Amino acid sequence: MPAALIQHPFMSADGLAACHGQAMVKAMLAFELALAEAQEAEAALPAGTSQRLRERLAGHPFDLDALAAGVASGGNVAIPFVKQARAALPDELKRYFHQGATSQDVVDSALMLLLKSRLARLDALLVRCRVAGIALMQVHDQTVMVGRTLMQQALPTTFGVRVAQWTLGLEQARRRLAGVALPVQFGGAVGVHSGLDGPGWDDLGLTLMDSIAERLGLAAPVLPWHTDRQPIHALGTALDAAAGAAEKLALDVALLTQTEFGEVAEPAGEGMGESSSMPHKRNPVRCALIRGAARQVHGHTTVLLNAAAQPLERGLGEWHAEWSPLIDSALLLEGALEQAAVLLEGLEVNAEAMQRNLAVTGGAIMAEPVAKLLAPALGQDAAKRIAAEAAETARREGRGYAEVLAEHAEISGKVAADELARACDPRLYIGSSQQQVKRAVSWLEGS
Amino acid sequence: MPAALIQHPFMSADGLAACHGQAMVKAMLAFELALAEAQEAEAALPAGTSQRLRERLAGHPFDLDALAAGVASGGNVAIPFVKQARAALPDELKRYFHQGATSQDVVDSALMLLLKSRLARLDALLVRCRVAGIALMQVHDQTVMVGRTLMQQALPTTFGVRVAQWTLGLEQARRRLAGVALPVQFGGAVGVHSGLDGPGWDDLGLTLMDSIAERLGLAAPVLPWHTDRQPIHALGTALDAAAGAAEKLALDVALLTQTEFGEVAEPAGEGMGESSSMPHKRNPVRCALIRGAARQVHGHTTVLLNAAAQPLERGLGEWHAEWSPLIDSALLLEGALEQAAVLLEGLEVNAEAMQRNLAVTGGAIMAEPVAKLLAPALGQDAAKRIAAEAAETARREGRGYAEVLAEHAEISGKVAADELARACDPRLYIGSSQQQVKRAVSWLEGS
Amino acid sequence: MPAALIQHPFMSADGLAACHGQAMVKAMLAFELALAEAQEAEAALPAGTSQRLRERLAGHPFDLDALAAGVASGGNVAIPFVKQARAALPDELKRYFHQGATSQDVVDSALMLLLKSRLARLDALLVRCRVAGIALMQVHDQTVMVGRTLMQQALPTTFGVRVAQWTLGLEQARRRLAGVALPVQFGGAVGVHSGLDGPGWDDLGLTLMDSIAERLGLAAPVLPWHTDRQPIHALGTALDAAAGAAEKLALDVALLTQTEFGEVAEPAGEGMGESSSMPHKRNPVRCALIRGAARQVHGHTTVLLNAAAQPLERGLGEWHAEWSPLIDSALLLEGALEQAAVLLEGLEVNAEAMQRNLAVTGGAIMAEPVAKLLAPALGQDAAKRIAAEAAETARREGRGYAEVLAEHAEISGKVAADELARACDPRLYIGSSQQQVKRAVSWLEGS
Amino acid sequence: MPAALIQHPFMSADGLAACHGQAMVKAMLAFELALAEAQEAEAALPAGTSQRLRERLAGHPFDLDALAAGVASGGNVAIPFVKQARAALPDELKRYFHQGATSQDVVDSALMLLLKSRLARLDALLVRCRVAGIALMQVHDQTVMVGRTLMQQALPTTFGVRVAQWTLGLEQARRRLAGVALPVQFGGAVGVHSGLDGPGWDDLGLTLMDSIAERLGLAAPVLPWHTDRQPIHALGTALDAAAGAAEKLALDVALLTQTEFGEVAEPAGEGMGESSSMPHKRNPVRCALIRGAARQVHGHTTVLLNAAAQPLERGLGEWHAEWSPLIDSALLLEGALEQAAVLLEGLEVNAEAMQRNLAVTGGAIMAEPVAKLLAPALGQDAAKRIAAEAAETARREGRGYAEVLAEHAEISGKVAADELARACDPRLYIGSSQQQVKRAVSWLEGS
Repeated sequence: MPAALIQHPFMSADGLAACHGQAMVKAMLAFELALAEAQEAEAALPAGTSQRLRERLAGHPFDLDALAAGVASGGNVAIPFVKQARAALPDELKRYFHQGATSQDVVDSALMLLLKSRLARLDALLVRCRVAGIALMQVHDQTVMVGRTLMQQALPTTFGVRVAQWTLGLEQARRRLAGVALPVQFGGAVGVHSGLDGPGWDDLGLTLMDSIAERLGLAAPVLPWHTDRQPIHALGTALDAAAGAAEKLALDVALLTQTEFGEVAEPAGEGMGESSSMPHKRNPVRCALIRGAARQVHGHTTVLLNAAAQPLERGLGEWHAEWSPLIDSALLLEGALEQAAVLLEGLEVNAEAMQRNLAVTGGAIMAEPVAKLLAPALGQDAAKRIAAEAAETARREGRGYAEVLAEHAEISGKVAADELARACDPRLYIGSSQQQVKRAVSWLEGS
Repeated sequence: MPAALIQHPFMSADGLAACHGQAMVKAMLAFELALAEAQEAEAALPAGTSQRLRERLAGHPFDLDALAAGVASGGNVAIPFVKQARAALPDELKRYFHQGATSQDVVDSALMLLLKSRLARLDALLVRCRVAGIALMQVHDQTVMVGRTLMQQALPTTFGVRVAQWTLGLEQARRRLAGVALPVQFGGAVGVHSGLDGPGWDDLGLTLMDSIAERLGLAAPVLPWHTDRQPIHALGTALDAAAGAAEKLALDVALLTQTEFGEVAEPAGEGMGESSSMPHKRNPVRCALIRGAARQVHGHTTVLLNAAAQPLERGLGEWHAEWSPLIDSALLLEGALEQAAVLLEGLEVNAEAMQRNLAVTGGAIMAEPVAKLLAPALGQDAAKRIAAEAAETARREGRGYAEVLAEHAEISGKVAADELARACDPRLYIGSSQQQVKRAVSWLEGS
Repeated sequence: MPAALIQHPFMSADGLAACHGQAMVKAMLAFELALAEAQEAEAALPAGTSQRLRERLAGHPFDLDALAAGVASGGNVAIPFVKQARAALPDELKRYFHQGATSQDVVDSALMLLLKSRLARLDALLVRCRVAGIALMQVHDQTVMVGRTLMQQALPTTFGVRVAQWTLGLEQARRRLAGVALPVQFGGAVGVHSGLDGPGWDDLGLTLMDSIAERLGLAAPVLPWHTDRQPIHALGTALDAAAGAAEKLALDVALLTQTEFGEVAEPAGEGMGESSSMPHKRNPVRCALIRGAARQVHGHTTVLLNAAAQPLERGLGEWHAEWSPLIDSALLLEGALEQAAVLLEGLEVNAEAMQRNLAVTGGAIMAEPVAKLLAPALGQDAAKRIAAEAAETARREGRGYAEVLAEHAEISGKVAADELARACDPRLYIGSSQQQVKRAVSWLEGS
Repeated sequence: MPAALIQHPFMSADGLAACHGQAMVKAMLAFELALAEAQEAEAALPAGTSQRLRERLAGHPFDLDALAAGVASGGNVAIPFVKQARAALPDELKRYFHQGATSQDVVDSALMLLLKSRLARLDALLVRCRVAGIALMQVHDQTVMVGRTLMQQALPTTFGVRVAQWTLGLEQARRRLAGVALPVQFGGAVGVHSGLDGPGWDDLGLTLMDSIAERLGLAAPVLPWHTDRQPIHALGTALDAAAGAAEKLALDVALLTQTEFGEVAEPAGEGMGESSSMPHKRNPVRCALIRGAARQVHGHTTVLLNAAAQPLERGLGEWHAEWSPLIDSALLLEGALEQAAVLLEGLEVNAEAMQRNLAVTGGAIMAEPVAKLLAPALGQDAAKRIAAEAAETARREGRGYAEVLAEHAEISGKVAADELARACDPRLYIGSSQQQVKRAVSWLEGS
């Protein structure tokens, strides 16, 4: 696969390193050993068994190629894994390994373990974003820029508020992710802990489930959830939400970076964003990678939405379809958030360009306050009409808005020139911007 | 549109009745009047203004056709709505209407209001499902049936556990939905409360936002969220999760209703499920409607995932794309949950058929316990082989599994016949089924 | 439903008018009557029967509300429709109505009939786009503008080529749509024409299918396709492709319309794009509506992709899930293409702004040709470095690129000033632009 | 990445082997060398240059790790690839490499080359499916089975028709894929062939594009298509259609394989479908892998649908998001079709079980023909009612349908017993089944 060249660059290198094939094996083994320990603690295995299993298997060199081949015939990786593990055990231990478990117990739990460390990393990245965002919004809480709705210049705002919006989005996603439970899976063949050896043991199923969860640092579910995929839906959509928050940042940075805007720029870096043919260009590569990653996460999430309903006691393809989209989503998001953190920490902000762009319409973005100023004297309809006409005139003739207004026949003598000038000054028209930054910081730090 | 014939049947009639065009108008008006009241309370409007606005507009017959036409030119329904409302006001009141608000404030808040009553209904339906589910699982906590993995008979379970799984899925979704905030929208043109008349008033933006939220019974967001769509993502995906939980129920009921299974049947009803050409058929129509609805919800949710990132201060199509998918998702889900509640309340359960199907393999589904029983005497590999061979023989020859095993040459004399018979009895092999129902009920009632 | 206010504005008014509930009824009736005629022609009905059915039913006032209610119990609209129709017939005719047909035959065929007229309209709109596109690209085949990659200014191109790209996209989609077959559905209960009365008639199933297709102007499929949804997949994805082509146009127009660009503007129109609070704004509403519609089409298409596999002889929800997404996709696309046609026919093009924006980097977009010019004299690496440095200098100091280059110490004396000036002139660097417009026109007109 | 264990098993091993990182490099190099040859043929390069480039680079050991790292800074793999290639060239050749090309030219063309060989393989697999399908449907053109609609037994059909439906679906998808053009990409920085050295050369852009296409065996597009993604949409959705056709096969096989059905079974194979805990089980693993793969393809396709609109002259994330979904879709589909071919070639068909299942309702599936038989004597309504009642009685009492009918008081004496018996015989009620198989074969072989 050319994944290394067309997919991995969107992902986190750390994540990729942590999530290789052997890590999956290690996670599956961790589940099996926790199962054995839990059983031993309940006297469902002879004393010392779990330790002997660990000694035999902890360093065992599992054959990844054989595992991969075994998936194609068995339908999931737990089947060849259990085979390889048993083959490495002395006869008397074989039956104690994987006792009472089913393939899905192993695979689901192992995926949750892999994701647990990824979620920790995602949280750390989102905290980095929050810290950087708070700093940036406070620095720029009075940096006036034009607000743009439907990509048209509308009215003044501040860059601080723009950053606050990005940061709130990312932090909402962080809190949502932090609230997602990663449950252990343990129910045996059909989810009711059948097949645990011995009289009276059937009662132990749920006890063992809770015990394994605790040993692995995973959540204990109410019941096994082989075909109750609400936990996967909650996890997958929470990853997608964070991808969306990063994507919003990237979209805005890309727009504000447009040559004609020049209001911000991605942090410069050796070779970052160079063109293969145009020496003058600096491409917003981080934004492109974030947007590329987020779109792929949306696609993966769509798979999860459509796989939420799985038949009876085990999916027939629906479950299988989850594995790669889930892990890939986490790794793509981790990549996107690495870029987002760098963006927020190092964004180049050009307040001068923001100032320049505020003037691009000849000040016509101030038509609303002007109309409000004129309304009492001229009536609301006339005020709106005149404010709009003057805006059009100023734009066409390349003159200042205040100047055009001052000379307008209908206004003349009815509104003071300094009031007109004031109404045309964007710096005096930033509404609750500063309060918003304060409120955002307070909420962000209150978690 | 043939929506009445091809889309509405998936939806809730109650929901459709509550969510018509006039309801949207009423919700927009509620926002505007709450805004005026909030402003009046802060002395930003002359005393009595909000009451006068209410008197003039509460019963005003808004022209829906003109509103619809106005969307096409204005881009959203708030624009023609504000025009119609102002036209109905005396001149002196015109300027106090919609003061400081932008179209998106009106539309987002109105949609949240419509959804608020839908969410209440969804919660009630999910509670109905929970109550019915608890009753059903308790009745059937000892009703043995075969568990099926990858749609193959695997090992015994109970119908009580199956119901517990459905109910847990629906209740998880209910709690997730209950945790979703429906925030008011109020930020003005670019989200920073510009354009509020008068000196010192700009500070009031956030105060007004909180006040409107309280008046409307909506959540107060940290900041206006015109292009921070995390709330929409959280809401849309929570709706989708509930759709997935209902879809799981419908998938299982459809499978268990298959003619060859006959383990459950949809509640009978006048004309329900009849075929246009085959008098003997009773189609699982409720399941079809649930599955049809859920799939459409997934499609709508995909739109929301891909619209989470919206440019700068206002979406250019991304926002517009949310409206219909969001409302339709809620109405489709409401329809699906009405069906789900009826299913859980009236499901016909055929315990006899469950019993019959347990015997369909000649008992071979008990191969696992048999193998476990044989293992100490014959070794694990031989035990598995013999259990499998005997299963194949029993199936081919149409004989009982216990009988075939008892006659097996390698077993003979090594395992007692009654132990063999016990190992072949599904009723003795339901693991933690009863404990699971108890635990599920406890969790379900603990909320 | 507030569909009139939040969904219909994205759709075509013509399409909505043509696709109402009665139109669906009319289409179902057309199928049934064509079936009767085909049967009569094969002597499977008494002579004159089809005419008598038509006389009785052609003007019959079907009760839409009862039909809608009947869907909820029957699972599709054909069931109550057949009931109502039969109730309107004298006893002796009842059995000849819907003879040998199943509900899905009626519904699928009726949907295809509705879509047939929509596809004709879509084709006409796409032809309008092609005509307008050809005219526009020819007018502007020498209108130089800056090409932007990753939204950064890159090198010169022409507006003619930009238009050619839009038009090619739309025309590719048109040809794809024109190649999609709309097949009749006729197979009876399980798709093998069981239930046709009388000996020897079973052979007639396929003959009747072909005959009905011809009578209705639909395509004759190889076999009935109740659960072979390849035709729906082909149709749905072709609609989506056209939505994507319109979306591309809207995205570019929205970007070029940005206040800071000002290179194009949507056609002006009474009330088009006005803001509810800002008199100076003219929002690109048509672009927003197109983008909003296209995104919803993508969501609908996702439903179709995930419903392509339907179980055995009839979908259980998968089929039901297709109806609304399919019709809505067509209506949304029709709305989007109406907007697209207006855009292409009336787009305001500001060649001056294009010229102005070419100069925005101080000419640095010409760094590539400059580097090429310098390379023979200075070596490729030095040439690139100097071209880039000078670009940066020009941008920072607000000076002309040619001027900065001319004064550069390393260049001085090695390259003639007029050659430098030529290399800095965008009008001389538009590559194959004119050839591209010619080639595009030739292909577009060659269909 | 654990891709080897959780993603690759769904894919084709052949495809994975053919599509590794070095294959991508080789494809990029093929593009660059074809470009040089085309330029040399037009005298845009010194004679012999392309041969010298080939000699230097054909065996050059590109450093994949460095390439991967370079993507993260450059934004795509062409940037580090061109760097590595130039570094391997003597100074005098450097400038002739990648001349006039942009990164997207290289990447798009290389992906098309990789996909070209995959499409050839997909076609071969689909031909295998067609051949196997034709054989299977002909063998079983009289094998009666019950047709199931909404998963309920409906009326008889034949297994031959079921196979014909699968095969038609796959063949429609094959023809659609065969009609998809894989165009070369060549347009230079902004798509207008700027930057080709020398006077008069600009005209050569399109000539070179056509020439490169011919040299690489790719299609020549009308114009460069950097942001006209109609070709990608057509390709991606055609892959998805084939995935849907395979998914339909897998869904049906999975349903017919259910323990209670037993009508077909996946081909047996060493270790295929074994359970990690239940020796008696044979899981339909191939079906699970196909369904798992198809669902992932749908997710990838959703990414492509949402990336069809790309801004101006180059996508900013939209393009980047296409790479992996496109290649993964092809590899997943190849895996799914390998499984589908094996299924169709080796499916175990149990005609006896089909016969048994026809009797499962006591023959009540014949209620339709019975009602038709009774109608002339009893009236249509009574006929339907009696047929339905008798079906219910037969099912409840476990008696034969014909027997119950014969004893029915209202029928007695009005319909001959042998006619009743005939109407109850499924083998006499298979409609156009045999004609359908003939027609399907004729169409399938007619391509």
